[in-house]
Amino acid sequence: MNRNRMRLICSRCSQSLPFRYQNMKCTCGGTLLVDYDVEQIASMLTKEALVQRYPSMWRYYELLPVSKPDCIVSLGEGWTPLLRMYESEKKLPIRQLWVKREEQNPTGSFKSRGFSAAVSLLKEAGVTKAAVPSNGNAAGALAAYAARAGIAAYAFIPRDCPPLIVQECTDYGAHTFLVDGLIHDAGAIIDAGKDEQGWVNVGTLREPGRVEGKKTMGLELAEQLGWKLPDVIIYPTGGGSGIIGMWKAFRELQALGWIDGPLPRFVCVQEEGCQPVVDGLAARAQVSAVSAEGACKPNPTGMRVPNPPDLELVLSTVEQSGGTAIALPAEQIASAAASLGALGISASPEGAATWAGLLAGCDSGWLRPTDSVVLFNTSHALKYATLAGLTQPRTIRSYADFRSL
Amino acid sequence: MNRNRMRLICSRCSQSLPFRYQNMKCTCGGTLLVDYDVEQIASMLTKEALVQRYPSMWRYYELLPVSKPDCIVSLGEGWTPLLRMYESEKKLPIRQLWVKREEQNPTGSFKSRGFSAAVSLLKEAGVTKAAVPSNGNAAGALAAYAARAGIAAYAFIPRDCPPLIVQECTDYGAHTFLVDGLIHDAGAIIDAGKDEQGWVNVGTLREPGRVEGKKTMGLELAEQLGWKLPDVIIYPTGGGSGIIGMWKAFRELQALGWIDGPLPRFVCVQEEGCQPVVDGLAARAQVSAVSAEGACKPNPTGMRVPNPPDLELVLSTVEQSGGTAIALPAEQIASAAASLGALGISASPEGAATWAGLLAGCDSGWLRPTDSVVLFNTSHALKYATLAGLTQPRTIRSYADFRSL
Repeated sequence: MNRNRMRLICSRCSQSLPFRYQNMKCTCGGTLLVDYDVEQIASMLTKEALVQRYPSMWRYYELLPVSKPDCIVSLGEGWTPLLRMYESEKKLPIRQLWVKREEQNPTGSFKSRGFSAAVSLLKEAGVTKAAVPSNGNAAGALAAYAARAGIAAYAFIPRDCPPLIVQECTDYGAHTFLVDGLIHDAGAIIDAGKDEQGWVNVGTLREPGRVEGKKTMGLELAEQLGWKLPDVIIYPTGGGSGIIGMWKAFRELQALGWIDGPLPRFVCVQEEGCQPVVDGLAARAQVSAVSAEGACKPNPTGMRVPNPPDLELVLSTVEQSGGTAIALPAEQIASAAASLGALGISASPEGAATWAGLLAGCDSGWLRPTDSVVLFNTSHALKYATLAGLTQPRTIRSYADFRSL
Repeated sequence: MNRNRMRLICSRCSQSLPFRYQNMKCTCGGTLLVDYDVEQIASMLTKEALVQRYPSMWRYYELLPVSKPDCIVSLGEGWTPLLRMYESEKKLPIRQLWVKREEQNPTGSFKSRGFSAAVSLLKEAGVTKAAVPSNGNAAGALAAYAARAGIAAYAFIPRDCPPLIVQECTDYGAHTFLVDGLIHDAGAIIDAGKDEQGWVNVGTLREPGRVEGKKTMGLELAEQLGWKLPDVIIYPTGGGSGIIGMWKAFRELQALGWIDGPLPRFVCVQEEGCQPVVDGLAARAQVSAVSAEGACKPNPTGMRVPNPPDLELVLSTVEQSGGTAIALPAEQIASAAASLGALGISASPEGAATWAGLLAGCDSGWLRPTDSVVLFNTSHALKYATLAGLTQPRTIRSYADFRSL
């Protein structure tokens, strides 16, 4: 397709620039986002034509920033199942409930989407070396997609992150380093080495691909629900690019005329002790911040991002949506993981947090009996396993042994 | 749909029986398979209508044995990506290469398919308790689908199987037991307890669902390749129900008139030391068996099935297809896993064995330069991780640390 009219637009100052592969920080400090010529797209693409396309996130090619189809780096990402939870609907005071099973992506997490797009752009730009600061799943996704593309990957991961996710990076051949610090410390190392190492930083909101790839979660949700969006999306929030991306998806679908009616209210879930979105919304609403920071040490999950790259943009998006944010204690998240397991779903801590948020929203009355709700299970439970935490079932030799237990 | 004309047919003596939920062993010792009224299906379903359906294995509902749609137990299984391996095609003396990414199923393995069908049939039959002997992935799949259906699951797993796969069973709430023995010892325990415990044995070829669910791999392959099958399928073989199921799929598609031309040749890959398919084919061809049994101890993977429930059926299917079988040393399988990792694919030992089989088939000349080949990556690498085997990347505090490494 003709990409001449794809541009960049600043989400803060609205400055518009021609599209090129670049750092997405505007001179004003805002984040640049990709701006499509929706009129042109509407003239080329219909909902009906989409049905005929292969079920992957690349079915939305016209709404993705890659210009050369042969630069697309795909491992089979997107079009993850949207699972209706009939039994839970009967028990909870909401109308409809789904789980979006993002753990069924090729790298076992939703990060596959962003990196399929981001690595495709790297390939298109001729980049040979990329680095990412990550709590794990983004690093694994960069590692896999870079391997597919023949690009050297450098992963910098806080040292307490799940060992299996670290293992995944080395399995895919990434140069993998543990960092004595948090994700922003890992990012500082990459920035410090940028000139000398010549790597491109593909961290959150640093380049055009990841938000656009994440956006496909929102596009899919609309298509899978027959172009009728849910009332509420509960989403585990770290850097917030999923929120930014999905909101962008909904606005683009409105502009295309493919959806109407109100857009979903976002509920950002975080773990107590690392809750910048919760605190930020409270501050903007001039209510006292409820931060439990210092009181407890948040677990090393994708939600542990104390300094999101563009918190303002996340906050304003959640506000625009009529949404909210909630911080949950670690025990509630663990208990939610067990609940989802008992329903047959392998839930990461992040995915489990959305279930905990659902229960909290029902309890508080924020969720209404008329609401349809989608939870995002962003990653697979097994990626977070540690041998220390494994159960040890009984060993038997015979049925007599079984009976004697 | 009207299921009155669905029957059971013995794959050995051709006896035909009305369909009912039952043990699939015929009085002659052969295996009963589900026999559809293909004429009736052909009058109701077209390839063109399929395109409009949701991408899951249940798009082939008419070719699956569940009669009541509201008994379908689904977690989002099937329609896994079929990944073209362009770079590898350039390097290997074959025409085309794909990897079918079965690890992207809801339970991280191809076993999701068989258990979605099997547990649906349990639900339809009103069964409340099911047991399975398994090297791990089947147990995890039973656990998940039974949880979804509210059925009690009992998993019996050889004690040396991967701890994370065992963990998965307990995460899904299955009653999980380690067995001091191999998979057939686990099966013997279930059979011994059958009357007293009242559980249904959903082991390989014991009930109608699992072969039919696995069959959808073959249906999908045909549809994803535009109703043109590959020349060769390389498949990791344990009990062999995948081979039986896919062959059944191809014959049904022929009967529907949806495909023509030769069917794929199957290559069964096994690990040296547990190679009943390799030895069985050699014995039938009256060449000296090449068994390395006793010489090495096979690893606890899904390929370790010393006594397949119906070896004759597997052997005759492979022969009919013009296929072969190969046993590979553990080191070649490990090396193949690293090769697939370096291509961005998280390969289980079973999936890696197909890559090792591919290389062996190229070396021996059994694979031809004109062949198109599909490998099945049946499960996700991380499920087999052990903490003992984890790499330990270097820990750094700063970019100066990085430079000093």
